[in-house]
Amino acid sequence: MIKTLKETVVFNSIDEKTIKNILEKTKYEIKKYSPNESIAFRGDEVKGLYIILKGTLITEMLTEEGNVIKIEELVPSDVIASAFIFGKKNSFPVDLSVKDEAEILFVERKEFLKLLFSEEKILENFLNEISNKTQLLTNKIWNSFNNKTIKKKFCDYVKKNQKNNLFSIQNLGALAEFFGVERPSLSRVLSELVKDEKLERIGRNKYKILDIEFFEI
Amino acid sequence: MIKTLKETVVFNSIDEKTIKNILEKTKYEIKKYSPNESIAFRGDEVKGLYIILKGTLITEMLTEEGNVIKIEELVPSDVIASAFIFGKKNSFPVDLSVKDEAEILFVERKEFLKLLFSEEKILENFLNEISNKTQLLTNKIWNSFNNKTIKKKFCDYVKKNQKNNLFSIQNLGALAEFFGVERPSLSRVLSELVKDEKLERIGRNKYKILDIEFFEI
Repeated sequence: MIKTLKETVVFNSIDEKTIKNILEKTKYEIKKYSPNESIAFRGDEVKGLYIILKGTLITEMLTEEGNVIKIEELVPSDVIASAFIFGKKNSFPVDLSVKDEAEILFVERKEFLKLLFSEEKILENFLNEISNKTQLLTNKIWNSFNNKTIKKKFCDYVKKNQKNNLFSIQNLGALAEFFGVERPSLSRVLSELVKDEKLERIGRNKYKILDIEFFEI
Repeated sequence: MIKTLKETVVFNSIDEKTIKNILEKTKYEIKKYSPNESIAFRGDEVKGLYIILKGTLITEMLTEEGNVIKIEELVPSDVIASAFIFGKKNSFPVDLSVKDEAEILFVERKEFLKLLFSEEKILENFLNEISNKTQLLTNKIWNSFNNKTIKKKFCDYVKKNQKNNLFSIQNLGALAEFFGVERPSLSRVLSELVKDEKLERIGRNKYKILDIEFFEI
């Protein structure tokens, strides 16, 4: 168990002896789950720190349309819902279930706060962990906002410059400059259009339009 | 100054005497800015805790398209970029400038970590603050994802059921049920369409279509 904990974001750079000492002073629980068991539903309270010691967990979202979207798999040493332990909305953002037989170390919120307060390095680790979460999300929102507008410019351009549903780019850098955007951003929009099967790449800088209606927007 | 600090998320529920004691033991700096002065650009390093003591700050984003979007105004007792003090990407997510003459209390990151470690309530306050940020963003992403699909269903429905660009809803709850979505979600999509000037509300549950092309999508 100590080895698995040492690999978590929380106990990162803490030596095994210190982890052992901390565990001796901390109230914790080991929860065991069978395959396919449901651990929590979106909206259930996150009651403290959950660290996976054994097994694989699946996070899923049930959309309001009734579709189930698999988000990710969690494995040993992963911390579950770290940014939802504190804050106002202490609830799981996703459904959580078990793939293989699993074991989870659980430390109740108040007790975890004491633990954070007992070792400055652990506190710093945890602050980094939840700050990273926010930073990733901010970046994601920013990219999707920017891509939406770059995509619009690019679609207009494709519409005007296509011939028989074929389209080629002379110089990506120049095109980005023409749009007044960064080259990597334009590149990202292009990959997205290929991934979404709106365009097919048929050669170096040559594309075939798969969904002509999309570019009419 | 103590009064302003007492109102911040960081020193919430800490009495003035304790704040005074903490300040005496903490290295801090008071930075002064003139009106219209730029404090930081998106990407600049966030070096620690910044609390506004006086004046109004403006956060703006320069999109890759070259447009400036004003995000929000920050006022005394606000903490700047709290979720960007720790974590890997320690940089301002927005441009930050001064509207009126301003004063900011600055505590360097390492020193702020010591401060968090010195008082459990402050630590808990700060953990709540940055967790709330993540929770808000998660919620925002989730809503925009869900609204995208609900909006599509609703637009199809409007297209089929409009007459001379007019459209009425008999029963919003029943329509939500018909779509298999929650009523507040459908309601949110409707308000968004009105706000974006795609629809105009002309009576109780009666709407005029302003942008017919939009509903053709």
